[in-house]
Amino acid sequence: MTKTGTLQKPIFTSAKDVEAAFYDALARSDLDAMMAVWSEDEEVLCIHPGGPRVQGLAAVRESWRELFAGGPSLDVRVSQGIVQNFMMVAVHSVLEFVTLEGDDQLGPPMIATNVYTRGPDGWRMVVHHASPAPDERSLMIQDAPRTVH
Amino acid sequence: MTKTGTLQKPIFTSAKDVEAAFYDALARSDLDAMMAVWSEDEEVLCIHPGGPRVQGLAAVRESWRELFAGGPSLDVRVSQGIVQNFMMVAVHSVLEFVTLEGDDQLGPPMIATNVYTRGPDGWRMVVHHASPAPDERSLMIQDAPRTVH
Repeated sequence: MTKTGTLQKPIFTSAKDVEAAFYDALARSDLDAMMAVWSEDEEVLCIHPGGPRVQGLAAVRESWRELFAGGPSLDVRVSQGIVQNFMMVAVHSVLEFVTLEGDDQLGPPMIATNVYTRGPDGWRMVVHHASPAPDERSLMIQDAPRTVH
Repeated sequence: MTKTGTLQKPIFTSAKDVEAAFYDALARSDLDAMMAVWSEDEEVLCIHPGGPRVQGLAAVRESWRELFAGGPSLDVRVSQGIVQNFMMVAVHSVLEFVTLEGDDQLGPPMIATNVYTRGPDGWRMVVHHASPAPDERSLMIQDAPRTVH
């Protein structure tokens, strides 16, 4: 991103890079950096925890603008990523721990499903669906490791 | 599905067909029909509203078994679908209205992100992420129609 405000968006070479940029923009409440990770598809979809579905680039931008208007930087930790890779599409599931910077109390975790696609301008986000997770003791249920009889 | 319990899974020719079968199985609390819509990928992921991430076919099956153990059929209505189609992958966002059959009160809506992929055995579900939506008045925010100046 240049400081002149021109739309020189970065080219992301992997879904992982888009995800890193997404959470970095979230932590810094940086609206331009946030919008640089989104695809320019009209169907992009963003669901903030407990919120409505927000569809379309302008509406998604407005939703982040409102969220970032509060001001303070956030401490954002992401963990336990689960990745599903397909042709030109990657689906990541992560746990988000978001707290106000300087706040000692760890907020409740969120589960986020993030969908990325590879287009002519590299990888971009097309869906972000975040919702509250239950308490930390039961954040993931997995198949038991297979035993050989 | 045959009545003998063999694993003759149906072949779905579109993501839309998988979605219809998914909500039909949910409405009938039919565990075998429910599991027939899921991909056999080890990474399949299911997030019930407010619940933890459930990963893997056996764990996903167990989560539905527990949900269906309650017994009564559900009245399931799905609306306002938003579809994003990619190569071999489709991402559907829907609003779910689920009520116990015979119950007059409409439950709160859920937002579901459903991801489907096309594999050698046709289309299957790989991700279901459902979470509570806000009240009905603000279920979707969209870009305003574009005006030409």
